[in-house]
Amino acid sequence: MGLVVQKYGGSSVADAEGIKRVAKRIVEAKQNGNQVVAVVSAMGDTTDELIDLAEQVSPMPAGRELDMLLTAGERISMALLAMAIKKLGHEAQSFTGSQAGVITDSVHNKARIIDVTPGRIKTSVDEGNIAIVAGFQGVSQDTKDITTLGRGGSDTTAVALAAALDADVCEIYTDVDGVFTADPRVVKKARKIDWISLEDMLELAASGSKVLLHRCVEYARRYDIPIHVRSSFSGLQGTWVSSEPITQGDKQVEQAIISGVAHDTSEAKVTVVGVPDKPGEAAAIFRTISDAEINIDMIVQNVSAASTGLTDISFTLPKAEGRKAIDALEKNKGGIGFDSLRYDDQIGKISLVGAGMKTNPGVTADFFKALSDAGVNIELISTSEIRISVVTRADDVPEAVRAVHTAFGLDSDSDEAVVYGGTGR
Amino acid sequence: MGLVVQKYGGSSVADAEGIKRVAKRIVEAKQNGNQVVAVVSAMGDTTDELIDLAEQVSPMPAGRELDMLLTAGERISMALLAMAIKKLGHEAQSFTGSQAGVITDSVHNKARIIDVTPGRIKTSVDEGNIAIVAGFQGVSQDTKDITTLGRGGSDTTAVALAAALDADVCEIYTDVDGVFTADPRVVKKARKIDWISLEDMLELAASGSKVLLHRCVEYARRYDIPIHVRSSFSGLQGTWVSSEPITQGDKQVEQAIISGVAHDTSEAKVTVVGVPDKPGEAAAIFRTISDAEINIDMIVQNVSAASTGLTDISFTLPKAEGRKAIDALEKNKGGIGFDSLRYDDQIGKISLVGAGMKTNPGVTADFFKALSDAGVNIELISTSEIRISVVTRADDVPEAVRAVHTAFGLDSDSDEAVVYGGTGR
Repeated sequence: MGLVVQKYGGSSVADAEGIKRVAKRIVEAKQNGNQVVAVVSAMGDTTDELIDLAEQVSPMPAGRELDMLLTAGERISMALLAMAIKKLGHEAQSFTGSQAGVITDSVHNKARIIDVTPGRIKTSVDEGNIAIVAGFQGVSQDTKDITTLGRGGSDTTAVALAAALDADVCEIYTDVDGVFTADPRVVKKARKIDWISLEDMLELAASGSKVLLHRCVEYARRYDIPIHVRSSFSGLQGTWVSSEPITQGDKQVEQAIISGVAHDTSEAKVTVVGVPDKPGEAAAIFRTISDAEINIDMIVQNVSAASTGLTDISFTLPKAEGRKAIDALEKNKGGIGFDSLRYDDQIGKISLVGAGMKTNPGVTADFFKALSDAGVNIELISTSEIRISVVTRADDVPEAVRAVHTAFGLDSDSDEAVVYGGTGR
Repeated sequence: MGLVVQKYGGSSVADAEGIKRVAKRIVEAKQNGNQVVAVVSAMGDTTDELIDLAEQVSPMPAGRELDMLLTAGERISMALLAMAIKKLGHEAQSFTGSQAGVITDSVHNKARIIDVTPGRIKTSVDEGNIAIVAGFQGVSQDTKDITTLGRGGSDTTAVALAAALDADVCEIYTDVDGVFTADPRVVKKARKIDWISLEDMLELAASGSKVLLHRCVEYARRYDIPIHVRSSFSGLQGTWVSSEPITQGDKQVEQAIISGVAHDTSEAKVTVVGVPDKPGEAAAIFRTISDAEINIDMIVQNVSAASTGLTDISFTLPKAEGRKAIDALEKNKGGIGFDSLRYDDQIGKISLVGAGMKTNPGVTADFFKALSDAGVNIELISTSEIRISVVTRADDVPEAVRAVHTAFGLDSDSDEAVVYGGTGR
């Protein structure tokens, strides 16, 4: 007997039928002897519909009021889910984020969880109820106003509750079977991963994998919560994301050298051309960007040409923030000192992720060779200890992802994944 | 400068346009130098749609969860209204029933307000904001669960908040111009009432007038809150409901002898035939009814026939509860002792209301004469100090209401209302 926190996304509870199906699944977990807390998102497109309504009333709705509005979405789905469970003969109670003790900062629309005080949830499950909790929402510590956590917030709610309740597992139910070695829409032969470490998952999430959002994985790693990502439409085992490998049968699943290939075409590239190669220049550029509240991803600077003493600095950022970045840099051109700016939103990023690359020197070379064999030109390179990312033309991304996926033996009909020997890469 | 509590019903905020129109009206009240608290219902048919959704999931949804579900409705309308007001350049904050301090008992779906502690509302308006409050909802004192107040609950929220905030007036905005001397859909010549006492309004509400519900008027009378019922679609003065007459120009509006004619065709009549005329019989009947949690309206018992020592007792009740009442009585037939039951759901009730009838002896006679002239047969009669009600065939109701309305000079093109002399009736 354990405590299980489950999370169901909007597509799983899109209509009355979906809610009844999810209710059955929750009851199964309870019948298996567990205490169950289920975190639920708003039904299907509810959130988008509410945003539309807000825009009809005001083109720039106030953050506090937008949060008040959007939180109606989970209120509807969680109450219906509790009703559906009671109909199956089990006791259930629904709780808002505030009632569940999800305490956040006061940044409306993208609040961060500061603390979780799940006293009412604990009491409810100890009394034998199934507790249904609204995802995506909380209450601000300072103003007591209702807040929302931003995109993917329900996953974070689930992991944070699992941590606060010391749950045995956090099950994230979604419309796919788990985490794949690449996006199955791009790579038909992508393989479901049985187990992946929290570190590798963090890199995949940061590199464009959409199954789990970065913030949620970060939370799971900080509190060491095992996550089980699985489909709400099937009974299959999904992907375990945890610090310790799982066992299947009597065999421990081994750490793969390469966990997967992620890609991202949502970014643009800005190149600052003709920057004097002297201390303080990069700082001036990125101070300007951060003052404009723009989040950036990769930063690349190469050695300067000896003849001019000038260098180029490139960085990538979400396309939606491109205009703002260019404006901010142009405005500060005098202070920073550069020749010109180049903006390119036809780029894509391909990332290879795997803790195994730390100890396998051939990975980087094989990665570049696979891209070269596929005729893909590399524009930027950036690496971390367990990831290599390259920027290419956006058009090249699908082919590049498939080529890399095949080269590393990740295709589902490969006999075996590639095996490396030696240490260091 | 004063404090005004306004209430807007679902038809006033049915869509984005309605919300913008209401926002303008709220801002006008603010610009006239008032502090403004606006209580708002769910948009248009939202509540009915949510109930439909609940019934798709569970035919008998649990009260706690139904309340959690339904309260999403006002959450949506109040957040949108706050956005629309901010768009007009004024500060606004929305508050749930719980945040507004509406404390209720724990009877889900028809909770009663126990206390109102509007500290956050007071702070908000003192800081210069317009406060928008969700009608119809509160939080239970004992369980801290979300509750709803039942039909017409938003009016009660508004009056209760007005009382707790010591407001100067509670304005109830609706889709008609005010309280009429009869239902304008039945009596084309019905006249808008400029002022009506809280007592007369209470009797009209109890007799089937739908503009204000009984519980809301009761609350206003207990705390002596003046209510102004008016249209959200026009700028016209509506109907003042208050203990003290209002002045128009430099003239005080006089108390009418007859305030209006109400009717109700939502009830059925049960007759318990052949009841022994001895002490305890009526008590046994109505104990049975109240044990079945059925609310009844009129009770009529006539003198018994001397020959048999048996009498008949009739009562009226909502049609929806008819089956339950008959079953309960049949089950207790042995204990109560009666011959048979008669059930009739083709009845209607017509009520004449006016404090003036206390001091005008001719009213009752004129009422019965008007009905007789219209060929309407009377089945039951019941009176209070300021009301006479009769039960007739349902089909006769429209004609009966028009006849009585005309006879008492209430028609809008009458020269003058009927004037009585003398005292006592």
